[in-house]
Amino acid sequence: MSVRVALFGTKFMGKAHSQAYRNVNMYFSDAPEVEMAVLVGRDPRETEEARKTFGWQEASTDWKAVMQRDDVDVVDISTPGHMHAEMAVEAARNGKHIICEKPLANTLPEAERMLIAAENAGVKHFLMHNYRRCPAVAMAKRMIDDGRLGRVFHFRARYLQDWAMSPELPRLWRFDKEASGSGALGDLGAHIIDLGRYLCGEISEVCAATETFITERPALDGEGKKPVTVDDAVVMCVRFAEGAIGTLEATRFAAGRKNHNTFEINGSKGSVVFDLENLNNLQYYSTDDDIDAQGFRTIICCASTHPYGGHWWPDGHIIGYEHTFTHSVYDFLKGMESGHRVRPDFEDGVLNQKVLDATEKAAETRAWVKTD
Amino acid sequence: MSVRVALFGTKFMGKAHSQAYRNVNMYFSDAPEVEMAVLVGRDPRETEEARKTFGWQEASTDWKAVMQRDDVDVVDISTPGHMHAEMAVEAARNGKHIICEKPLANTLPEAERMLIAAENAGVKHFLMHNYRRCPAVAMAKRMIDDGRLGRVFHFRARYLQDWAMSPELPRLWRFDKEASGSGALGDLGAHIIDLGRYLCGEISEVCAATETFITERPALDGEGKKPVTVDDAVVMCVRFAEGAIGTLEATRFAAGRKNHNTFEINGSKGSVVFDLENLNNLQYYSTDDDIDAQGFRTIICCASTHPYGGHWWPDGHIIGYEHTFTHSVYDFLKGMESGHRVRPDFEDGVLNQKVLDATEKAAETRAWVKTD
Amino acid sequence: MSVRVALFGTKFMGKAHSQAYRNVNMYFSDAPEVEMAVLVGRDPRETEEARKTFGWQEASTDWKAVMQRDDVDVVDISTPGHMHAEMAVEAARNGKHIICEKPLANTLPEAERMLIAAENAGVKHFLMHNYRRCPAVAMAKRMIDDGRLGRVFHFRARYLQDWAMSPELPRLWRFDKEASGSGALGDLGAHIIDLGRYLCGEISEVCAATETFITERPALDGEGKKPVTVDDAVVMCVRFAEGAIGTLEATRFAAGRKNHNTFEINGSKGSVVFDLENLNNLQYYSTDDDIDAQGFRTIICCASTHPYGGHWWPDGHIIGYEHTFTHSVYDFLKGMESGHRVRPDFEDGVLNQKVLDATEKAAETRAWVKTD
Amino acid sequence: MSVRVALFGTKFMGKAHSQAYRNVNMYFSDAPEVEMAVLVGRDPRETEEARKTFGWQEASTDWKAVMQRDDVDVVDISTPGHMHAEMAVEAARNGKHIICEKPLANTLPEAERMLIAAENAGVKHFLMHNYRRCPAVAMAKRMIDDGRLGRVFHFRARYLQDWAMSPELPRLWRFDKEASGSGALGDLGAHIIDLGRYLCGEISEVCAATETFITERPALDGEGKKPVTVDDAVVMCVRFAEGAIGTLEATRFAAGRKNHNTFEINGSKGSVVFDLENLNNLQYYSTDDDIDAQGFRTIICCASTHPYGGHWWPDGHIIGYEHTFTHSVYDFLKGMESGHRVRPDFEDGVLNQKVLDATEKAAETRAWVKTD
Repeated sequence: MSVRVALFGTKFMGKAHSQAYRNVNMYFSDAPEVEMAVLVGRDPRETEEARKTFGWQEASTDWKAVMQRDDVDVVDISTPGHMHAEMAVEAARNGKHIICEKPLANTLPEAERMLIAAENAGVKHFLMHNYRRCPAVAMAKRMIDDGRLGRVFHFRARYLQDWAMSPELPRLWRFDKEASGSGALGDLGAHIIDLGRYLCGEISEVCAATETFITERPALDGEGKKPVTVDDAVVMCVRFAEGAIGTLEATRFAAGRKNHNTFEINGSKGSVVFDLENLNNLQYYSTDDDIDAQGFRTIICCASTHPYGGHWWPDGHIIGYEHTFTHSVYDFLKGMESGHRVRPDFEDGVLNQKVLDATEKAAETRAWVKTD
Repeated sequence: MSVRVALFGTKFMGKAHSQAYRNVNMYFSDAPEVEMAVLVGRDPRETEEARKTFGWQEASTDWKAVMQRDDVDVVDISTPGHMHAEMAVEAARNGKHIICEKPLANTLPEAERMLIAAENAGVKHFLMHNYRRCPAVAMAKRMIDDGRLGRVFHFRARYLQDWAMSPELPRLWRFDKEASGSGALGDLGAHIIDLGRYLCGEISEVCAATETFITERPALDGEGKKPVTVDDAVVMCVRFAEGAIGTLEATRFAAGRKNHNTFEINGSKGSVVFDLENLNNLQYYSTDDDIDAQGFRTIICCASTHPYGGHWWPDGHIIGYEHTFTHSVYDFLKGMESGHRVRPDFEDGVLNQKVLDATEKAAETRAWVKTD
Repeated sequence: MSVRVALFGTKFMGKAHSQAYRNVNMYFSDAPEVEMAVLVGRDPRETEEARKTFGWQEASTDWKAVMQRDDVDVVDISTPGHMHAEMAVEAARNGKHIICEKPLANTLPEAERMLIAAENAGVKHFLMHNYRRCPAVAMAKRMIDDGRLGRVFHFRARYLQDWAMSPELPRLWRFDKEASGSGALGDLGAHIIDLGRYLCGEISEVCAATETFITERPALDGEGKKPVTVDDAVVMCVRFAEGAIGTLEATRFAAGRKNHNTFEINGSKGSVVFDLENLNNLQYYSTDDDIDAQGFRTIICCASTHPYGGHWWPDGHIIGYEHTFTHSVYDFLKGMESGHRVRPDFEDGVLNQKVLDATEKAAETRAWVKTD
Repeated sequence: MSVRVALFGTKFMGKAHSQAYRNVNMYFSDAPEVEMAVLVGRDPRETEEARKTFGWQEASTDWKAVMQRDDVDVVDISTPGHMHAEMAVEAARNGKHIICEKPLANTLPEAERMLIAAENAGVKHFLMHNYRRCPAVAMAKRMIDDGRLGRVFHFRARYLQDWAMSPELPRLWRFDKEASGSGALGDLGAHIIDLGRYLCGEISEVCAATETFITERPALDGEGKKPVTVDDAVVMCVRFAEGAIGTLEATRFAAGRKNHNTFEINGSKGSVVFDLENLNNLQYYSTDDDIDAQGFRTIICCASTHPYGGHWWPDGHIIGYEHTFTHSVYDFLKGMESGHRVRPDFEDGVLNQKVLDATEKAAETRAWVKTD
């Protein structure tokens, strides 16, 4: 089986997804063969350059035309969030399987439209929450599914970065609600909401506060200042449908935290802790250990016994950030082959968006809000 | 100057306070001399035994009589919370200076009554939130006061323990609202609220959820089960008066967390992280470091340059949990000598209680609640 | 400029080097363009399969013929150590630039022959000690070169693994002195000797002990047991020419240590610590920090300010083991372009081999041995 | 049973031992009762001040007279090393039980003389290598004795400090071989040799190098410079009688290492790691753990299930440096009561001294030296 892919987007995510297509067959011998057919961008020169650098066969700036090509099996949407809906609907209409970068969309109605379009078209749809496929995160999931953590009491997660702390930083599109939907909430919070749902089940209700620490920034065109219309940070309390409670936090104002996407789960039989800055490691505590020898242990999840293990390098030879995309593409390809559902998909995207919406509403109304 | 102390309470806190009185003059040569005059308990035999073990001159079971003794300068109340108010008011009436174990009281009215009594009597009053006086915590405070962290954006704290996870654990007084006021909230949450107030200023509003994971437990008398009437865990979002936002969390259901009282503060110029399980260490990140050499550093706060440093042992020779009580007693004694206010005092206790009250109300009303 | 490469070797190192050639142009836009011309192996079917998996244009089993091809610019020798000398000499004879996997050779005379051949032919020669090009290691080097560590007093390194602990493990070629030269010493020790030389200058003398904990193992053919003729572990004390002293240790018998290649350097102005199991991080201590705020800090060496930074992903998005090969190939290609020497080269390999030889001699003679 | 103690020495170790006598009965209810009878020093005023501060009944400057007092049961020698032999022999002659601060003596003949004197007199003798009684170290010992680590392959230890790095630091007695015997070797190395012997059995042979980085220092009287006649640092390779090999290292020139007494032991069934700067923690790796969940775990050795646990504070409430002295005194007192041997004793001191001697000889002769 060979799969021809068209990728829409040439920037950070375009690069990250490209390397996944480029390398998946080298490391995962049982995956269907990928052909990197077309790279689609806006600017002809930039797109051609990216095509060459990333290794695509063709470049194009006509996204609708590419959607209609018969020789494309999978469409990968790695454009900014406000373009996702239109593109995904078009892809579905043309019967293409879809991989979509997170967030699924900037609004809930858009997300729901995408889900319906994909379902109606009977195409495979997949949402790129790549962090589910850090081996250590997948290992945490295995432990929970095995019952090794028992009944889950607590989920606490935070995604902390610090790149927005300087008041001199201009008002990029990320500070503009029109373009980005929200700030730290949608950008970072969406990731930890996804991890929470993946590991602990649905979030049923939320209370929250959002804050914008720097309320105006130098305009990109150098002409004075413009208001920041998104949140710089968000704090949340949540309840899960299955009984756990949690705290979530996302910010761009945590000095020293570069990519600190971390969670801790406490269950009746043990706990796990993850931190994306050391993404190969999972900390694990088991109440089954000898009574005088209990403690949090650091599992380097790089052995053949671990999820996605044995495909890369020997034990203890760590992998990096981009490998999580390779794992995601691998699982998607296997799902295409088998016909099985591969998650997270657009339904997960819709459910994630409901939590984001509830969070914004909770912050506005200063009260707990249910997610459905 | 010599100070004669009467201590009320012979259990865990009685032991912890006793060792402070016992040792403060050995390590802090400039402190007024302490005389361990009277230990007061309920049971004559137990009290006499504790007197001998801890090193007090006399034992007594008549607490009111001891309050009236002329040869007692300081009264230390280390009894359960519901007895604090009556004892403190009596102590103040007799002109005794007062050290009170946290929580100041089980209810806000009690706490306010204690503050008024002490203020009216013109006695010194002090609340034993000993964790302020971990050298690493005091070091964090120094950094904030020096401006080394800049403007504070975030405070996130959690106090996690796991001793209550077994359903076989009987219904101790700590699971009974009548006796204990609340569960994890008042027991553990009060500590991190105090640290938040100490380091980041007043908490102005709160939203929260509380949860009781095990709703009934074996009765202490072995006769069936009795309901648990306090929270096992609490999660909170907070806003500080000075603009920071935060998350707080306290639980007795975090497998593997024995005494994990930890906080992180992010400011415009740096961050700090503390964990009571390694209480000598403070992690610190500074944006002033060389651009290619920035990172969280672990300061072992045991040198003569650190708060309370130079009194114990050479650099890198760590101290333990109980030393924080010795520091507290030392500062209290110095305050007696100088007449300066020593914090936290009963006013801090009242403000802390207001946050606890707001938290309970927020959990009940499912909405943000202001603390005043 | 375009560079056509022939790679000899299809196993672990063949895979690792292949991915470097495959990806270097994607991430390092200023590198000469690589063409993956020929992959050379022993078994035709395996080689063809590897060719396809790794992405080479042609496969061959005739290594001598490939050496003579005019359309090959660079020869990469990733075969077992005992074949390096013959291949490298042949490559040099044909005017090919050479990348050679470590160890340069199994014996000092072989290594010297390779160096002479390459020098006489005027070709570029490079030894793949890839760990020099972990960003954190390169960062340590920068700090030393900048004088940020001052005068170096101590180097302590260890490379610990645990894969050989089971007595059931059969007698692989790695346990056979004929095939492998030595055991942990040449396999792991060579790496930390290279790092020591890279960071602290030449090692002038050595004392050591080697040990074989399991002296015979099941024969590969299933017929009884065969003796292990290499060391399982080695411990060393060393003196550096510039005055520092050190300890080095390599073993395959350290339970729980998977790929624990770690070093610490102490200088008059600071210290650094590295661990390959967290290869993105460098710990750093500076005596220039505020007197009350000194501590080891963890630098995540993934920012644009760090060596090889800015080519991969944003700050805090970590890279993995194989990226160090990509960095090595990148630097080699840049060296081809500029004509500058790129190290480590065969001369480094010879010097490394001299330390290995001295170590074996020191262990045998039970005395300190000079390296020259 | 009540035990009257006379302590000789009023400085750092006098203080550390005093607190042990002062507190042992408070925490260990089953220990014989200690009476702090006499403190002996050189300077009358200083000694009287120390007496008062530390809580001794009497002060004296006549050490021989105190040795002969009938009302003294135990003599504690906490004076500098060159005085140990004379004092211990005198104590033995008077039938006193003896606690002696490490090192037992500055030379092997002295140490042997002490052992013979104590044995001939039939008195109890104990050597204060207090680090054996960190709960985490005692826990490591338990694990080894239980067979939880299996056959031991490796011991690697280092004791790193940094207080001597400044060339401005004057030539204290610690830099004078006459007064101190040796430098880092005897001061710090002796500790890790003791831990090695305690945990892995006798050290049978040694090779080593010593180094003096700063060869002269300002004279204490301010008149010019005087030579440093001891080592600043030592590196060692060792073999244990039972088959393990090891590296040991002690230095006063490791920037940032304040009290970094650390060891790692690798056995066929697991490994342990200890660091005095976090002395409550033991890292432990077990090959018995689930195959996908193996990793080094951090045991906080403060629970009632741990050595010396249950005597201090609840789980996770850590203890400090000086508590190791209290544990030592406790065990000594229990040994007095039971008549059982308590180790380390003077025989251990002699064996330790033999390793120190062999190390010095190995460094001089540049060859491996047997310890007996």
